[in-house]
Amino acid sequence: MIENAVIIGAGNLATQLAMAFDEKGINIRQVYSRTPVKAMELAQKVKARSTSELSQVVNGADIYVIAVKDSAIEEVLKGLPIDKASLVVHTAGSIPMNILNGFTHRYGVFYPLQTFSVTRKANFSDIPLCLEASETEVFTKLKTLAYRISSSVQAISSEERKRLHLAAVFVNNFVNHMYAIGSGILEQSNLDFQLLKPLIRETAKKIESMHPFDAQTGPAKRMDQLVIGNHLNMLEGQPEWQKIYSFVTESIYEHESKIKNNKE
Amino acid sequence: MIENAVIIGAGNLATQLAMAFDEKGINIRQVYSRTPVKAMELAQKVKARSTSELSQVVNGADIYVIAVKDSAIEEVLKGLPIDKASLVVHTAGSIPMNILNGFTHRYGVFYPLQTFSVTRKANFSDIPLCLEASETEVFTKLKTLAYRISSSVQAISSEERKRLHLAAVFVNNFVNHMYAIGSGILEQSNLDFQLLKPLIRETAKKIESMHPFDAQTGPAKRMDQLVIGNHLNMLEGQPEWQKIYSFVTESIYEHESKIKNNKE
Repeated sequence: MIENAVIIGAGNLATQLAMAFDEKGINIRQVYSRTPVKAMELAQKVKARSTSELSQVVNGADIYVIAVKDSAIEEVLKGLPIDKASLVVHTAGSIPMNILNGFTHRYGVFYPLQTFSVTRKANFSDIPLCLEASETEVFTKLKTLAYRISSSVQAISSEERKRLHLAAVFVNNFVNHMYAIGSGILEQSNLDFQLLKPLIRETAKKIESMHPFDAQTGPAKRMDQLVIGNHLNMLEGQPEWQKIYSFVTESIYEHESKIKNNKE
Repeated sequence: MIENAVIIGAGNLATQLAMAFDEKGINIRQVYSRTPVKAMELAQKVKARSTSELSQVVNGADIYVIAVKDSAIEEVLKGLPIDKASLVVHTAGSIPMNILNGFTHRYGVFYPLQTFSVTRKANFSDIPLCLEASETEVFTKLKTLAYRISSSVQAISSEERKRLHLAAVFVNNFVNHMYAIGSGILEQSNLDFQLLKPLIRETAKKIESMHPFDAQTGPAKRMDQLVIGNHLNMLEGQPEWQKIYSFVTESIYEHESKIKNNKE
């Protein structure tokens, strides 16, 4: 059983994961971040020690959870002064599990499919935790740990995780950017972004019960050239937004045409 | 007071609006659609008569609500056999109020800022109803009518409504297309779209309390070239999705850079 953990990283994901573990009684022994103040801030939240020196990371924890940015994982691994029998997991969507091979004999991936912010408390109970492990014993341990914080625990291979992460970029980062553009368009006319919130809520709710292809409406689906032309004119001053408008509109329409042709 | 209405159209919006009026005791006298079966289906739901002949539309209703596709509005107006004192509104985001000028002396716009489907019952109570009217008397009547079905009633000019509609295309149609692409990416690997639902919910919830610019995370924000390159490779077989990925990523990054420069 995993009863304690060392958290490597103090960003959005590291913070929320450490707090979720702490709440469920998993003792956070130490928090590492190369930025001392960030390490201390998170350590305080979870009653842990902190360090900003990799060489000071304690040995003998039940699990080492690496939650740093993708490009820093390898460097961190090289600097971790822990023995080869330690259980180490990373938490990244796009990085294969094998990156951990060679640094330890027991490793895995613990990838929560969610968006995190330092300041917004995550509710892990329904967050899919995507697990992968170097061997059965490790997988069993990770599964037990995962079920302590979530009811949605999934066995996901490195290949599958990469696809999930790509899809997540579309439904999270890109969706959020559409919100940002919507908000930017209204700001130019001093219109309140609040006006869009019921629409944003309903758009997300709709696909709980409808396939996104069936949920689509609007000028692109109808290829309503008059409205589309007007919209493109209104975006004259924002060439990037205009480009996004054109390509997404085309992509929606192409998709609609395919569906129609299949039905005929 | 508006106590009864004729609904011109039987699509998504016409259906949901007629049902909302009917529920709140506004008598739907007649439903028109050029497709007889659609006219009859909606008429049945709201205990009204139906017609598929514009020339058969009854005279003397308190209000005529035009909820047909944008490109059909003018044709419908020309065919309506009603007298010049009738109150006529359209419900379109992108069409100026003045399109109604000449057909009647009393006109306006009744634009619900929401996405509608025939099969999914809309809850109007918090849907922003954007009103515009040819004169004060008409505005007052529309306002009273609007408050019977929603608590969010807004005075919005034709110019403002056009911008709202453009923003709505981004936060609804385009967001929904991002969901569709996400779902398409998972289908290729037989991964369950359900896995993305908690992320989709949280993405929408996050902006209830955070500005979308602050809510952003992910590889584009960090300009993580390794992940971005990998993702573009994975999209090789879908050139449209690949184009969208590139442009949205660029747009997110450009925005991040602007914020950073402003802070420095």
